[in-house]
Amino acid sequence: MPEIRQDVVTGRWVVVATERAMRPSDFGSTRVSAAPEPHQCPFCPGRELMTPLELYAVRPADCEPNTPGWQVRVVPNKFPAFKTGELEQPSESMFSRRAADGSHEVIIHTPDHTACLATMPVGDVELVLRVYRQRYRANRDDPHVRYAHIVVNHEKEAGASIEHTHSQLFGVPLVPPLVQQELAGASWHHTSRGKCVFCRIMEAELEVGRRVIVENDSFVAIAPFASCLPFEMWIIPREHQPSFDMIEGEQFGDFAQILHDTLGRYRERFDSPPYNYYIHSAPTDGSDYPYYHWHLELIPKLTWPGAFEMGTSMMINVTTPEHAAEFLRDSHSVG
Amino acid sequence: MPEIRQDVVTGRWVVVATERAMRPSDFGSTRVSAAPEPHQCPFCPGRELMTPLELYAVRPADCEPNTPGWQVRVVPNKFPAFKTGELEQPSESMFSRRAADGSHEVIIHTPDHTACLATMPVGDVELVLRVYRQRYRANRDDPHVRYAHIVVNHEKEAGASIEHTHSQLFGVPLVPPLVQQELAGASWHHTSRGKCVFCRIMEAELEVGRRVIVENDSFVAIAPFASCLPFEMWIIPREHQPSFDMIEGEQFGDFAQILHDTLGRYRERFDSPPYNYYIHSAPTDGSDYPYYHWHLELIPKLTWPGAFEMGTSMMINVTTPEHAAEFLRDSHSVG
Repeated sequence: MPEIRQDVVTGRWVVVATERAMRPSDFGSTRVSAAPEPHQCPFCPGRELMTPLELYAVRPADCEPNTPGWQVRVVPNKFPAFKTGELEQPSESMFSRRAADGSHEVIIHTPDHTACLATMPVGDVELVLRVYRQRYRANRDDPHVRYAHIVVNHEKEAGASIEHTHSQLFGVPLVPPLVQQELAGASWHHTSRGKCVFCRIMEAELEVGRRVIVENDSFVAIAPFASCLPFEMWIIPREHQPSFDMIEGEQFGDFAQILHDTLGRYRERFDSPPYNYYIHSAPTDGSDYPYYHWHLELIPKLTWPGAFEMGTSMMINVTTPEHAAEFLRDSHSVG
Repeated sequence: MPEIRQDVVTGRWVVVATERAMRPSDFGSTRVSAAPEPHQCPFCPGRELMTPLELYAVRPADCEPNTPGWQVRVVPNKFPAFKTGELEQPSESMFSRRAADGSHEVIIHTPDHTACLATMPVGDVELVLRVYRQRYRANRDDPHVRYAHIVVNHEKEAGASIEHTHSQLFGVPLVPPLVQQELAGASWHHTSRGKCVFCRIMEAELEVGRRVIVENDSFVAIAPFASCLPFEMWIIPREHQPSFDMIEGEQFGDFAQILHDTLGRYRERFDSPPYNYYIHSAPTDGSDYPYYHWHLELIPKLTWPGAFEMGTSMMINVTTPEHAAEFLRDSHSVG
């Protein structure tokens, strides 16, 4: 069973995912473990039984679960970081641990092993985003899940262990520290300024324009003023919506369009770089967060943080967001 | 001038080091930029004028500064992340920035381009640690520096841009968030339990023994209970000392011995992996921190954090610290 341990000095929680445990010999000198070859890929059609049984899929009505024919497929992670169950060992004297209750799902974007979100048709990206909402809602209704975290790790250098394009949804049994920080800041801002901080950021950025990369009817993509990493982007819905599960109607197509467009800009400008993205949304713990505003944060993997960042929790960014936005605006990519 | 920008949502500070700024074309598809070849290395003897003029060096009395003959050499970083000066631009409406005042130094460990801390004689490692204390004290006395952060990034994958073995000292104009968290936890623990939390951790770990890797007269190396990353170690002085600059006498030799030993264990067990370390110490802001206890944190670069970690500030560790300690204890390395 995966467990969550608490650092006795800082109080920070760390997931120790024993089911993912690697033997020391798995950490080779190549440093990045090899992904399965396409002819062994467990996410390809025809190998549905290499994954745990599917939780959900977009497939024709006459097509059996766990067989080929699907367009998007959702399965439990085979080596979950979160899984509801009993802890094997109790805490030791001053050292606290708890069960890493929750869920960990994999959303396989397409049956095509060679595709990715930047190259798939926008309509297929939209289908993936609709599955996000379906799984988000299913996890929201799980009493163990207090935060539903949807992420993409694209390519090995960005943390992917399987090449075939996919997202992950982590059903986390606590509100993560970074989300708590955003909630606290958004709440303070709403109380003291009378307005959502993300709505204000969007207004200010659209007025100045220097850090805006692209926009459409429902979304704006900016390089945030205090970007932590080079070429970081935030994609923010124009409408004030605290939680991702409030997305609906034409927002889906517009979200797919701007995500496809921005990933295409990375692809063109950096020769298909590895990248990460994740959605920040209100917790799913039953409370109301009217002051929060969901958004997607997107970062190409171009630099390696070092011991400064590890030891301080402060980032050093070597590219100004103004420069990043200008460079990405100049892309020829059309979403 | 480097600057520090504040995220308007979370209040987090990010250093935007414009003097380090890379052009987008510098981020190639190889993802890690190439280090200079040995015959061009600016840290090798004979190329002293390729670096800014030296701040300090261990060299014979009859040997001129900025010429060969040194054993350890300290120079300003050519592309500093912190540098005292005036900000070029004011803050914009809701977006705050300030000057990244402070310092940024490079400590070149040895004239030998092919050596590293794990392969140098222990006596040479001790010399480097004595230089750490000298530079720590010099930065402590700089009124702009509120925290002196000493780090090593070993090899490109761990964030090094130059191969020749070296440390960096960042003179930071604020107390970094992670250090603040440790200080708050240590202070709380001292008040509520009447004792230093690091002293208590050491006692508890030595009693149980499962997470102890190696010890000597002055230091203990453990795999911390809530390790953030596989094979993470903390090297803690047995004596309760809040600040690194209190190290003295035989502690130097013992610190060199245990650092050399633990780096040797990584080297043997993981085929010379990239690694990071940093020293956590009390701030240099003039206040007293009697409840704090300096230590060194050491991590081999074996895994790549992904979007889960980036979006939550929580880590998923795939190796238990008990397993890590056992594996590292079994090494044949002798420091």
